[in-house]
Order: sequence, then C-alpha cells, then structure tokens
Amino acid sequence: MRNPAQNGQLALLLEVAGTPKPGNVDRHRDYDHLRFEHFLTGAVGASPGLRAAADGVPIGDAFESAVEGMSGQSGGNTQFGALLVTVPLVRAAASDRLTPEGVTAVVEATTVEDACAFYTSFEHVDVAVDDPPEEIDALDVRRGATATDALRERGLTLYDVMALSADRDGVADEWCSGFERSFEAAGWLLDDEGPIYRRASRTFLRLLAAEPDTFVITRNGEAAAEEATRRARAVLDGETDAEALAEEFVARDINPGTTADITAGALFIALERGLEV
Amino acid sequence: MRNPAQNGQLALLLEVAGTPKPGNVDRHRDYDHLRFEHFLTGAVGASPGLRAAADGVPIGDAFESAVEGMSGQSGGNTQFGALLVTVPLVRAAASDRLTPEGVTAVVEATTVEDACAFYTSFEHVDVAVDDPPEEIDALDVRRGATATDALRERGLTLYDVMALSADRDGVADEWCSGFERSFEAAGWLLDDEGPIYRRASRTFLRLLAAEPDTFVITRNGEAAAEEATRRARAVLDGETDAEALAEEFVARDINPGTTADITAGALFIALERGLEV
Repeated sequence: MRNPAQNGQLALLLEVAGTPKPGNVDRHRDYDHLRFEHFLTGAVGASPGLRAAADGVPIGDAFESAVEGMSGQSGGNTQFGALLVTVPLVRAAASDRLTPEGVTAVVEATTVEDACAFYTSFEHVDVAVDDPPEEIDALDVRRGATATDALRERGLTLYDVMALSADRDGVADEWCSGFERSFEAAGWLLDDEGPIYRRASRTFLRLLAAEPDTFVITRNGEAAAEEATRRARAVLDGETDAEALAEEFVARDINPGTTADITAGALFIALERGLEV
Repeated sequence: MRNPAQNGQLALLLEVAGTPKPGNVDRHRDYDHLRFEHFLTGAVGASPGLRAAADGVPIGDAFESAVEGMSGQSGGNTQFGALLVTVPLVRAAASDRLTPEGVTAVVEATTVEDACAFYTSFEHVDVAVDDPPEEIDALDVRRGATATDALRERGLTLYDVMALSADRDGVADEWCSGFERSFEAAGWLLDDEGPIYRRASRTFLRLLAAEPDTFVITRNGEAAAEEATRRARAVLDGETDAEALAEEFVARDINPGTTADITAGALFIALERGLEV
C-alpha cells in the first residue's frame, strides 16, 4: 500500500483535480499562466521532499526540498501552502502520531534552523504574502535567507514564526491549532460518498463557507474574502451554481488558495485513515 | 531538475490529463468505474517501480513493482501498457542512452527471469488481452505465474515474449522496433506549441490516425479499430469535432488504450529532451 510520502503526493493531486473549486485551478479550469499541468508537475517535483519528511529529515529542510522540487515548472507557485500543511502531517503519519496532539508535537519540536530553511524556501518561488507588522519587519519572508540573522538573533523556531502570523495566515493558524480544520474536513471527506473529485469540491466549499480565505484577503482584500465566503455558503444552500461561481472567480482572479491548502491537508489525513480511491 | 523516474511519473500524469483524447479517460472525461482519479493514484503507486527501473533493478522486477503499486486503487488497470512502454525508456534515460539503439539494447538484454516477473505482474491487475495463437497457448499471460515453467523450459526472455506478440500488440511492437512511434511522436510534442494537455491530445490523434489501435482490436474488433483511425484522421482534417468524438467513443466504450500508452512514452522522451512544462 501507499506510504505517507505517497499519500502526501496523492493529496496534492486529488486536491487540484477536485472540481468545481471556485477561483482555483482545478480539473476543468486553468489560469492563462498557471495551469493544471503545472500542479501535476509541482506534485511530481515535491515528492523527494515529502519522502525526506517521512524519513525524519528536519521539517524545514524537508519543506525546502519539497518547494525546490515543486518549482521545477514554469507556472510559479503551485503548492507552497499545501506543502506547508502537508509536510508536518506526513512526518506525523510516518511516526504513527497522525492526531492533533501528534502533529502539534511535530511542529512544536521545530528549531531555529527549520525557520532558516523555511525562509530560504522563498528563494525558490514567488509567493504572494502580506506586509508583516512593522515590529517584525526584519522577519519579512520576502527577505529570504537574509532574514536568517534576525531569526537566529531572536532565537525564533519555525513554530514561533508561524505563531507570529497565525492571525492573518490560515496555514500558520493550522500549525498553531493542532491542524484543527484539516482534521475536521478529513472527517467530511470520509463521511461523504462518490468520486473523490466531487468530495474534494464539497469539502473546499464547506471550508470556504466557514471562514474567509486569508490568501484572498492578502491578494484581493477583506471585502472580496468575505464575499467569497458568503457565496460559498450560497452554493451549499443551493442558491448559487458552483460551476458559474467557479467561472466568475477565475475571471475575477479571486483565488481561495489557503482553503485549497487545507483541503490538501484534509485529503492527506483522509487517505491515511482509509479513504479509498 | 527532475530525474528520469520523476519524468516517467510525470509522463503518466500528463498523458491522462491530455484532452480531448477520444475514447480515453482524460482531464474532462471519466468512465463510471474508471476515473481520472484512479489514474492519478496509479501514477503515485507506480513511482517506486519507476525508481527501481532508473536504479538498475532488472526490468521485469521494476515493471512488476510498478504494476503492483499502480493497482493500489479501485479502478482496475490504469497504466499497465503505459508502464510497459515507459519502464525500459526510464532505464535507457537513466543510463544515458535514450535513443532507439539504446533502448533496444535495454530490451534485448532482458532475461527469462524478466519474462517470469512480467507474467507475475498480471496477477496484480485485470488486463484485457487477446487469445494467443494455439501453438503458444502455454504462454497465455492470463496463466500468470503458472506459465513461468513454460517460459523457463523454452528459455524465453521478456524480449522474446514481446516479439511473439509484436504483430498484434502495439506496445510489444514498440519493444521490437526501437520504440519507433514513441520517438517520432516525441518530436511532434517538442515541435508543437501551447499547453501540454493540448499537445498530448494532438499527438494522441496523430498516432491514432496513423495506425489502428491494437487494444481496440482486442476489445471491440478490427472494424471498430479501423473506424477509430478513420475518424481520428477526420479530426485532423478538420472534418470531425474532437470533443464530440470523445463523447461518442466513451459512450460506445471504444478506448484506444495502446495509442495512449505510446503517447505516454512520447511524453517521457520529450520531457527528457527538454519539453518545458
């Protein structure tokens, strides 16, 4: 059977295949310069990093390796956030502790060196991020490896770095909350029926309906993020057509990427818990 | 950059994503019980076998490992033929001889033990095959591992086995012809422009237009295979709409699987020769 590293890769593939996922690249939709095939290629490139995570390589190095491999395609950032969710989950699964407590132990054990590797990973790919609060400007991830002096000076681990942005980054918030939403959504996937690409779509919509997407906040602003959540809720209530919303959000470049990242985490947990493909 | 095993996996993924590919599962079409997600899962499961091929494990064992991993999904046979094309190409690429002569040297070096492993691989998955000629009935692949006594008795290598069916199996014919069609179609992919999923579709149609698909002959008969080739030609001539033909062939269960297998081989060669995704 598949090992945790393989299920990590499969989670990335099943996530992008899920359709309709309004605003995201999916089985049926591309952006002009960010296409489905870039995500397939990203998932192939990420696999050595996922294997490293399973094998016990430090989380920061495994993540950086996954991101470096992922970026071997011309579409740009495909799965940076999804890997940031998935890498610690793969480690937890490979060490038989795929629970909120187990993965919390994994992320709490990260070091300053893990934080440095995380910063270096931004040099491999262009990731849309928000301005940090002024007092931690020296820790702006866009400074890449040059920010590592500041990390070492302050003794910040990767977990500490995530805690600093948990209030405005949905992936960081997963790190600091026992991957609560990923585990909850894994339950939805397991309780659902039918083809996985439809289950992934429904899970994505439920996650988006529950909370504004922080990637949309960063790129399009609060109002757009709240609209996306409101309209996902309307899809679930049967008042809006998901396919039409998917077309509209792609046209408007409203891309709930963080919700997709958490969907990938949920798919990984569900696969480890017996989701049959 | 990606190594040959990774490009092998990526070729499987890009092949199934190519659309429209009349009669095949593709990015836009599923059969009820054989869906796109089964191919994604098959490609994930096959990766250890592809790595084994790159690492110099005997071709038969590497192929059997790839097929065993591929079959860890509920859709059935997804990429048996594609792996039979791809595994020797991966080996050739990993040993710096990805040319018709180089891969011919790889397949001609196969042994009786490779043939035995190939037969064992049929125990992992249900593959549609034709009745063999009466004189080689003892070598019917549907006998699985029980046919290995006959293989050993006759001293047949895996290459010999392929030569026995080259006249009625398009993949076996690749083995015995220096992977001629795979190399030719790789050139088409490299000379083409635009997204890979469209290039893969056009390559599939050109291959199908050039020669009847042996998998269609086996499952649907000669007339259906000749019709498929005629109508692929009509698509290339602008007389038939490819999307409509795709719908019709899926509805009629006319599935040019061997043409898809060769498309995967062509994608692999093109990736190794610099096809940028």
